[in-house]
Amino acid sequence: MKKIILTGDRPTGQLHLGHYIGSLVNRVKLQNDYETYILIADAQALTDNYEHPEKVRQNILEVALDYLAVGIDPKISAIVIQSMIPEIAELTVYYMNLVTLARLQRNPTVKTEIKQKKFGASVPVGFLAYPISQAADITAFKADLVPVGEDQMPVIEQCVEIVRSFNRIYKPVLVEPKGLVAEVGRLPGIDGKDKMGKSLGNAIYLSDSADIIAKKVKSMYTDPGHLRVEDPGKVEGNTVFTYLDVFDPRADEVDKLKIKYKKGGLGDVVLKKRLTEVLESVIGPVRSRREQLAKDPAQIFRIIREGTERGRIKAAATMAEVRQAMKLDYFSK
Amino acid sequence: MKKIILTGDRPTGQLHLGHYIGSLVNRVKLQNDYETYILIADAQALTDNYEHPEKVRQNILEVALDYLAVGIDPKISAIVIQSMIPEIAELTVYYMNLVTLARLQRNPTVKTEIKQKKFGASVPVGFLAYPISQAADITAFKADLVPVGEDQMPVIEQCVEIVRSFNRIYKPVLVEPKGLVAEVGRLPGIDGKDKMGKSLGNAIYLSDSADIIAKKVKSMYTDPGHLRVEDPGKVEGNTVFTYLDVFDPRADEVDKLKIKYKKGGLGDVVLKKRLTEVLESVIGPVRSRREQLAKDPAQIFRIIREGTERGRIKAAATMAEVRQAMKLDYFSK
Repeated sequence: MKKIILTGDRPTGQLHLGHYIGSLVNRVKLQNDYETYILIADAQALTDNYEHPEKVRQNILEVALDYLAVGIDPKISAIVIQSMIPEIAELTVYYMNLVTLARLQRNPTVKTEIKQKKFGASVPVGFLAYPISQAADITAFKADLVPVGEDQMPVIEQCVEIVRSFNRIYKPVLVEPKGLVAEVGRLPGIDGKDKMGKSLGNAIYLSDSADIIAKKVKSMYTDPGHLRVEDPGKVEGNTVFTYLDVFDPRADEVDKLKIKYKKGGLGDVVLKKRLTEVLESVIGPVRSRREQLAKDPAQIFRIIREGTERGRIKAAATMAEVRQAMKLDYFSK
Repeated sequence: MKKIILTGDRPTGQLHLGHYIGSLVNRVKLQNDYETYILIADAQALTDNYEHPEKVRQNILEVALDYLAVGIDPKISAIVIQSMIPEIAELTVYYMNLVTLARLQRNPTVKTEIKQKKFGASVPVGFLAYPISQAADITAFKADLVPVGEDQMPVIEQCVEIVRSFNRIYKPVLVEPKGLVAEVGRLPGIDGKDKMGKSLGNAIYLSDSADIIAKKVKSMYTDPGHLRVEDPGKVEGNTVFTYLDVFDPRADEVDKLKIKYKKGGLGDVVLKKRLTEVLESVIGPVRSRREQLAKDPAQIFRIIREGTERGRIKAAATMAEVRQAMKLDYFSK
């Protein structure tokens, strides 16, 4: 029997190169070897976008288009809308009994995000409790593996704690997940900042046109001390080289360019032209598949619906076991 | 169209005279004039009994027997098992976005109960959040009226706040409930303590035999200064008189007894004999109906199942409107 992977994204915007390199490529690769559920986490997106349901709804289609365009095969990977799986809400409510307020407040990921969003004590309960609902996501599908960023590991730890408590108190029906930390580090934004993010305005999207890619690469952070072509330039912290390292298939040529850049005599314009071509060769085919797919949104919704139905069957089976373990299976026989 | 009432109990033990006089009599009276849903709140009972699911499960039958024995008519009142209505969990999760942690921690009912149960910061999130899940209970059935004790009014206020936020942010689909505070005050326990409670060991149950009633009345708190029959006795704070005031249909005779008791010359034994008879005349018929009903538990479960199905239809209709308001109605058309 294949092991199960749960992955997903919050539908708060289109997916970008950071997602592509950080998770999408990996999902496409893994989908043949694992039973894969990809959760479009709209209910979770609402925890800090509850006043903007329209934004969340619109982005479900966008995210699904991104998935299909990069090669997620809906015949093997189930694309599931979170809010259409009521079992996740039910599990969340029961798991809330197994986690103390103090424990939630100690969670480093939650702590950091509450700080970033400047919530303080006026944090919505739903936002504070999102590690609990993520545990519900993971366990509903009995996921063995959950691909995560390093910073999300505390959420996996919280899930493992809930699974252990549940299995001890009731009956061992839940599966302990493992976090699968991606080997690829984080892709910086085009501004050179640590992380590419939709809210940071420093992202290159999988739907960006060749022109926009060229423009974004032109504006990219390189070495601020590298003013004239003949000046020696820095490679470390130079976003263009970081991107070339990740995306350029010809590592030998990139190495030569680095040497030349450090010595002096290689201009940013040439370098950026190369990166533009490299990125276009990655994004171009994705973008054209995306445009093709976007012509028939009804077909995309059929795909999501079918994936959601498969997800629902899995989650309902888990919920039936949970009910039985918790002695809440009143009318079944 | 009839207005809607939601009431209910946590299935953590059999119901007693406190429930009878505080709510059950009223429910039987109101069921003809209101569309009534009576929620057996098993999921809520689990928030502080999560390690004892068997206890919660067993008491569902007991509570249902109490309901039917006192005259709840399942053809007009729907007896609903909370955990069988997943829509309540879904609403809970969405309402969690509309309530801040600070607001929950300010709730006087929650504050008091956290103190009583000595939870501190290790309060389970599910327990802390119970006013949110009660708002889900109330609004799932679009209840106009919720009979409550005075001390539960903050929960209704919290629900009204959630309803207003939801209706403002999304669409006005939820109904603002009103708390219906019972006119009858709290029935003291047989030990004279403020409240009759299953956990306090001072309750007379609707299933108690005539012998047990007699024994419990014998042990009842009267006037500790009233040692000999000829001594004058106190009527205020004398639990036997409190009970007679509530249950004895002949108020004129009780008034005469009070005068005699205060003067001296009326012994507790005589008084308690009267109360025993009065209580037996209340409980006796309930008990024998209860015994009759208990012979066919399968029939009771059929009744609960049917009530739960009616409740589910109501809650599902509300949830469909909520989904539409929150733009989560992806596949409906």
